[in-house]
Amino acid sequence: MRMVDVIQKKRNGMELNEEEIKFFVEGYTKGEIPDYQASALTMAIYFKGMTENETATLTQAMVDSGETIDLSGIEGHIVDKHSTGGVGDKVTFIVGPLVASTGVPVAKMSGRGLGHTGGTLDKLEAIEDFHIEMTKEEFINNVNTHKLAVAGQTGNLAPADKKLYALRDVTATVDSIPLIAGSIMSKKLASGADSIVLDVKTGTGAFMKTLEESEALAREMVNIGKNLGRNTVAVISDMNQPLGFEVGNANEIKEAAEILQGKNVEDLRKLSLEIASHMTVLAEVFSSYEEAYTELEKNLENGKAFEAFRNFIAAQGGNIDMINDLDKLPQSKYKVEVTADQDGYVSAIDAESIGVAAMYLGAGRATKDDEINHAVGITLKKKIGDEVKAGEPLVILNSDEENPEDSIVKVKEAYTITREKVTVPTLIHKVIN
Amino acid sequence: MRMVDVIQKKRNGMELNEEEIKFFVEGYTKGEIPDYQASALTMAIYFKGMTENETATLTQAMVDSGETIDLSGIEGHIVDKHSTGGVGDKVTFIVGPLVASTGVPVAKMSGRGLGHTGGTLDKLEAIEDFHIEMTKEEFINNVNTHKLAVAGQTGNLAPADKKLYALRDVTATVDSIPLIAGSIMSKKLASGADSIVLDVKTGTGAFMKTLEESEALAREMVNIGKNLGRNTVAVISDMNQPLGFEVGNANEIKEAAEILQGKNVEDLRKLSLEIASHMTVLAEVFSSYEEAYTELEKNLENGKAFEAFRNFIAAQGGNIDMINDLDKLPQSKYKVEVTADQDGYVSAIDAESIGVAAMYLGAGRATKDDEINHAVGITLKKKIGDEVKAGEPLVILNSDEENPEDSIVKVKEAYTITREKVTVPTLIHKVIN
Repeated sequence: MRMVDVIQKKRNGMELNEEEIKFFVEGYTKGEIPDYQASALTMAIYFKGMTENETATLTQAMVDSGETIDLSGIEGHIVDKHSTGGVGDKVTFIVGPLVASTGVPVAKMSGRGLGHTGGTLDKLEAIEDFHIEMTKEEFINNVNTHKLAVAGQTGNLAPADKKLYALRDVTATVDSIPLIAGSIMSKKLASGADSIVLDVKTGTGAFMKTLEESEALAREMVNIGKNLGRNTVAVISDMNQPLGFEVGNANEIKEAAEILQGKNVEDLRKLSLEIASHMTVLAEVFSSYEEAYTELEKNLENGKAFEAFRNFIAAQGGNIDMINDLDKLPQSKYKVEVTADQDGYVSAIDAESIGVAAMYLGAGRATKDDEINHAVGITLKKKIGDEVKAGEPLVILNSDEENPEDSIVKVKEAYTITREKVTVPTLIHKVIN
Repeated sequence: MRMVDVIQKKRNGMELNEEEIKFFVEGYTKGEIPDYQASALTMAIYFKGMTENETATLTQAMVDSGETIDLSGIEGHIVDKHSTGGVGDKVTFIVGPLVASTGVPVAKMSGRGLGHTGGTLDKLEAIEDFHIEMTKEEFINNVNTHKLAVAGQTGNLAPADKKLYALRDVTATVDSIPLIAGSIMSKKLASGADSIVLDVKTGTGAFMKTLEESEALAREMVNIGKNLGRNTVAVISDMNQPLGFEVGNANEIKEAAEILQGKNVEDLRKLSLEIASHMTVLAEVFSSYEEAYTELEKNLENGKAFEAFRNFIAAQGGNIDMINDLDKLPQSKYKVEVTADQDGYVSAIDAESIGVAAMYLGAGRATKDDEINHAVGITLKKKIGDEVKAGEPLVILNSDEENPEDSIVKVKEAYTITREKVTVPTLIHKVIN
């Protein structure tokens, strides 16, 4: 088989068979197929797409290109959760304990990565002494005991995806829905869960700006999951403004802990319950979404979910005092108000700009060598639909600088205030299964 | 400027500006832009095309990537000729002397290359002691004295094109009309002619199989020429069967010499006159196509064209005895008839298969280290439209083997014979200027 013929076949809009896809993925992983042929193929895929079969085969081939994590030592049906990423997304810290509180094991592999704030691991490390380093045995043991553990990604998972993603990033072929879907799902499948709930963000602050694109991505991922034998549900949720009120590291942990203690932050609580409901239904501890939602709400009220959170933090060495008294979490030196210039209603909050403002404060990494400052972040005081008076604070910047000029400018750019009343955006747009 | 943004812009169907195209071509030539970005861009161009402006800019940038040949030492208006390639195409050997016989200088750079038969240089080397090695001064002097010289391509002409073509060849992006047009024209423009006549082949034996594609390519090349200040005419000629009756090296020289002595081989003579007419009109020695055609026909009859051919061969050291007595050209050991199996009319002759049959005999190179056998080749005895009886020869194989089985099989595959009368295909489909 010659790679040039595989490229030409796809370029001509034909379906690649299993043999051809494996030839490409295996050859590319080994370095036998050069980058310049891989980039020509991905550009052809960008234009010609992939069928459901091709996408599933590509995903499986990427899984098979490296190690897979064996979670068979864990008792029960393991459900994983993945978000396509948004600003203020601390849903994992709520959903994990919430699902664990029903006895369903949550074995989470997470990353750090670049971005406006840290990744899941960085946020957890805002808690003093919390550590993610553990042996595979400790990890499995923690999950069996506490039903929840979070570890850094170890092992060489889906190396084909890693290599291909880096190439797509510099050849303008990132935004191909089958390739995005295959990339996300290959990592999830290699991580060993039985079922998967996907939180696909949509809106101005999401990678997918329109509902149509988000739905296409969600369907593609659900199809891959089903074709490869995992129950998969996708929730399409709104990212036209940051989720909840807190953006950063320590402040996101704080907000998650408050929800787990029964606080009602409308959008964040609702989305967490939505995702946890699908996870527990897939794990078959509840027979319907409605039952799951009701029971999970109870566990937020009765302290069971918070208890699961505390146990998980303590098991991984975290200073539990910081959870018992959230004011003990890292605090920034200054609190800087950014105020409204005019009366009106908040009609838009560009999540991207809020994220950049947080990164300027030090909450995220611009390059992989940057250090994260866990104490800094942004607390929103107004969200879309809220009435605001000139001079009232829109946000509080938790800053280690007295005058974080760049962040202030970015926040001002982020907010749009109109004279007319504004309706609050829909939170859950669609559920695909 | 970042290459990934240039790729994305083209991928999104937008027109690249001069700065972006030069950035790519210069960076790629220097090795600063990697192959994997170049192949992603060419695949995007395959799908999204290029505007007339973009194609001209790309071509100029490829010309500027290397040396250009300075022909200013040659007196008169220099017209070049290029064929997109076909089987039995010995038009250059007729057109060169024919145009030279009117006083218009023909300064031809040619190559060897792979293929069914040799390239222009290989065919000329069928004449004993003919050589193409000469200094630039000798070349210019020869053109000034004899109005015709043929040299091997020297210097580093359009290196960007060379590099890009090699990449396109292995990434399934060869058949993009703007890229083909830019590739051909960059080499022609770097070779220094004032005007260019293109012979764009169309049909089963051509790179472009349909008239529509051939016309698109012809228009693209004519536009490039015009945009870059060279008068350019394209003749779209038929390649649904080999041109003339001879395929090989010595036998193509022989057939060309016969035409130059007034022999009437219908298609070959007509196409040569057609191309020479456009060349001499562009050079302004004749004021109309009709006048040029009439005058050039005279020069075939009165021996002037043949005289120009003899002078050219002699000036480059060729043994003129072989031209004065064509039977002295290299002869194969055997003449093997391939006969018809049935009565009827020849309805198709697959030029590609005839070419492969000639290559099997040793007339061409399969790899660049192969030696060419100038003596071997194929003489067609029947062309499309001819009546044939079972047992009559279709071709004579000029072979150094007694039983060239592979070539016989290929020739039999090439010929289609039907019961119904067949009309001869049109030779000149269109002229684009």
